[in-house]
Amino acid sequence: MSVRDVIAELSTVLGQRLSLSKSDLEHHGTSETHFAVMPPDAVAYPENTEEVAQIVKICARHRCPVMGWGTGTSLEGQAQALRGGVSVDFSRMNNILDTRPSDMDVRVQPGVTREDLNQELRASGLFFPVDPGANASLGGMASTRASGTTAVRYGTMRDNVLGLEVVTAAGEIMRTGTRARKSSSGYDLTALFVGSEGTLGLITELTLRLHGQPEAVSAAACAFDNVAGAVDCVIDTIQMGLPVARIELVDSDTVRAVNSYSATSLPECPHLLLEFHGSETGVAEQAETFGLIAAEHGGSGFEWATRTEDRNALWAMRHSAFHAVLASRPGSTSLVTDICVPISRLSEAIEACRADLAEAQIDGPILGHVGDGNFHAVLLFDDTDPDEKSRVLAASNRLVDLSLSLGGTATGEHGIGLGKLSYMEREHGQAWAMMGAIKQTLDPHNIMNPGKLVPPKN
Amino acid sequence: MSVRDVIAELSTVLGQRLSLSKSDLEHHGTSETHFAVMPPDAVAYPENTEEVAQIVKICARHRCPVMGWGTGTSLEGQAQALRGGVSVDFSRMNNILDTRPSDMDVRVQPGVTREDLNQELRASGLFFPVDPGANASLGGMASTRASGTTAVRYGTMRDNVLGLEVVTAAGEIMRTGTRARKSSSGYDLTALFVGSEGTLGLITELTLRLHGQPEAVSAAACAFDNVAGAVDCVIDTIQMGLPVARIELVDSDTVRAVNSYSATSLPECPHLLLEFHGSETGVAEQAETFGLIAAEHGGSGFEWATRTEDRNALWAMRHSAFHAVLASRPGSTSLVTDICVPISRLSEAIEACRADLAEAQIDGPILGHVGDGNFHAVLLFDDTDPDEKSRVLAASNRLVDLSLSLGGTATGEHGIGLGKLSYMEREHGQAWAMMGAIKQTLDPHNIMNPGKLVPPKN
Repeated sequence: MSVRDVIAELSTVLGQRLSLSKSDLEHHGTSETHFAVMPPDAVAYPENTEEVAQIVKICARHRCPVMGWGTGTSLEGQAQALRGGVSVDFSRMNNILDTRPSDMDVRVQPGVTREDLNQELRASGLFFPVDPGANASLGGMASTRASGTTAVRYGTMRDNVLGLEVVTAAGEIMRTGTRARKSSSGYDLTALFVGSEGTLGLITELTLRLHGQPEAVSAAACAFDNVAGAVDCVIDTIQMGLPVARIELVDSDTVRAVNSYSATSLPECPHLLLEFHGSETGVAEQAETFGLIAAEHGGSGFEWATRTEDRNALWAMRHSAFHAVLASRPGSTSLVTDICVPISRLSEAIEACRADLAEAQIDGPILGHVGDGNFHAVLLFDDTDPDEKSRVLAASNRLVDLSLSLGGTATGEHGIGLGKLSYMEREHGQAWAMMGAIKQTLDPHNIMNPGKLVPPKN
Repeated sequence: MSVRDVIAELSTVLGQRLSLSKSDLEHHGTSETHFAVMPPDAVAYPENTEEVAQIVKICARHRCPVMGWGTGTSLEGQAQALRGGVSVDFSRMNNILDTRPSDMDVRVQPGVTREDLNQELRASGLFFPVDPGANASLGGMASTRASGTTAVRYGTMRDNVLGLEVVTAAGEIMRTGTRARKSSSGYDLTALFVGSEGTLGLITELTLRLHGQPEAVSAAACAFDNVAGAVDCVIDTIQMGLPVARIELVDSDTVRAVNSYSATSLPECPHLLLEFHGSETGVAEQAETFGLIAAEHGGSGFEWATRTEDRNALWAMRHSAFHAVLASRPGSTSLVTDICVPISRLSEAIEACRADLAEAQIDGPILGHVGDGNFHAVLLFDDTDPDEKSRVLAASNRLVDLSLSLGGTATGEHGIGLGKLSYMEREHGQAWAMMGAIKQTLDPHNIMNPGKLVPPKN
């Protein structure tokens, strides 16, 4: 490919909305975690689907890589330009196109963030539940099959995307799905694109499922003597079918970091943070049942907060946990693990994880969406210390092995990107080759986010 | 291909478990609805995955068509042998392999039926919710992305299959998914195979999500003066977020047929049949709320039945409705429509459907899973009367047009098979070509259920 030709052609389409500024290139080559900066050759700011199609057509003709960019909050380097090319930044495609309260769905452009959407929906009585913490773009969340704190009740992006408009690797505009709630008509291409991390095409529009704002919400923090008690409490809660809306674990290291960062004063022991959604009586009933389960596992200090400001404070604290942990060791870089195991193996997985990190003398506070069997260790290291970095990478590797050996997955919600590519064959075996065959068919010139997700081409 | 060679090779693998009996071939070429008999050349009865792989390898070598067969209850001719070949009957692969109550999942062979599974689960406190009416095999239900009466609460097969083992078109054994509740690892091949109707490979094992048996269940029938009142009641119920477990419409013609078939005595007017799942107080609260909504729309005679035998009688009646309608005109054949529209368009769709059928003088009682926007008209005709048959086919065609024009789908739950192939391009446009490209890659010799679902090969 000749990058100069690509840039010249794109400029005629986009004018000033094609950026070559050094800071812009660097920003679009940077991830939130430990990956080296990998800048694209240009950043495009399209304003509509037709422009995206033109961009991809030009890139396809020149065999130039194309990466999608939402808000840059992915954690495995999904959006970084491994082989240069054009980063397509969707920040100008951020319109909510059509809110349909009577069908409980909404059509949005990919650059709309989840907080913007929920702000807009506030008066409608509806909300979009998927909440990965970061104020990510909805296109990015679909691309990485994001989930987060509420997946235990409302599902992940897999469950909440009804249909898509995509620009294929050939620059064609295509729609998947309909507005019907369900369909048995043909291959589920919506599901194929959700989680494909921009390797099959670019998402230019999403139809999302909305949910009714619950009549009543209560939230609670509950302290435990040890992680095992908290985890056993989660397992019993899930197995009992209690429809908790959130059930999050933070270990004592995380609590310590959060207290220091957010000036809170939680007891420095493991906690479960919970939220219940339902009718007034339903929420009271759920909280009461949970209280009984927690007490059996040594839970204490369980109190509900029904006031909006108290609940917001609790979840603001939870959402700040990643940054709080980072701040606990100034100047450090992080590698965030993301394993997800069957719930019956959760205790075992967390215990083994803690023992491994202690043995390897790695700082790795644990927190996560334990109701799904999904948790993170935020492994801190000094990026200028090659020994420490290699110990952290080795530990991360062992944790993925642990997850796979327990019937789990290498990534519950962060996706593959650059960080998890080496586990794909181990997790999927023959199915990884099938993913490669599908990629080869839908993107024969390997221009869509090349080097990610599928087996490398020879 | 030489069928004789295929049969000779398969016989060495399967012995007596390869059937060439005329009645067996005819049975495996017959659907429950209006399609002509299309028998395969042989029926294979494998007992394990390795045998399935051997069967497919032999067929692949000879370019011989392979169709999967569960219980033969699909409604669009999915399992019929359009081009001859080998029907793989999974009735001997009917073991429940591993029930894991603590993870609320189960691993089953494809020949297990949903009723057998729930019978086995009875003592575990768990159940598998997807209920299409027929006692279908779980492999077949996954292949057609089945749903039914409980999808409004528990989702369809799309939502309840966690992972699969499949035999690919090359005869390779492959696994998709893990035992973790969620994953962001790679393309969602599980979702790709669910609903692919045997065109990409054969499902040889399923990992299914289970749900806790509700603490309390109540069911109810509620009579309405007219269909519009019933449908508006459904729309309000769904939009209010009431978590009904079932909400089914039967129109007055259906009630009349059911009364006559099942010796029941419901008032011969449109009814909603409901079920509520939850805690004792939750169920009472739901039923009360529904009662208020129903009253606003002219609903009457709303009473709950909490006794198991009363509930069973209600749902036995609902499940017999298809056969009751068939029996209402002895000797007739049926074409069952299956449109699914956004819930906001449901009234309009049902009214237009009724008006169209009345105008065309076609008997077509309406019933369906209205909580999803999905309903059926059972169009009755005399298969020896070409004029009536062509009027019925034309009406079915108009109803699909109606659904697509309202933002819906040609099939909510019955799938494509032979009956809906002609609507694929209209519904999916460019996406149908992409389905064809995926099929071409994964089944290059077009041996897996050829002639179904994807664009015909030249």
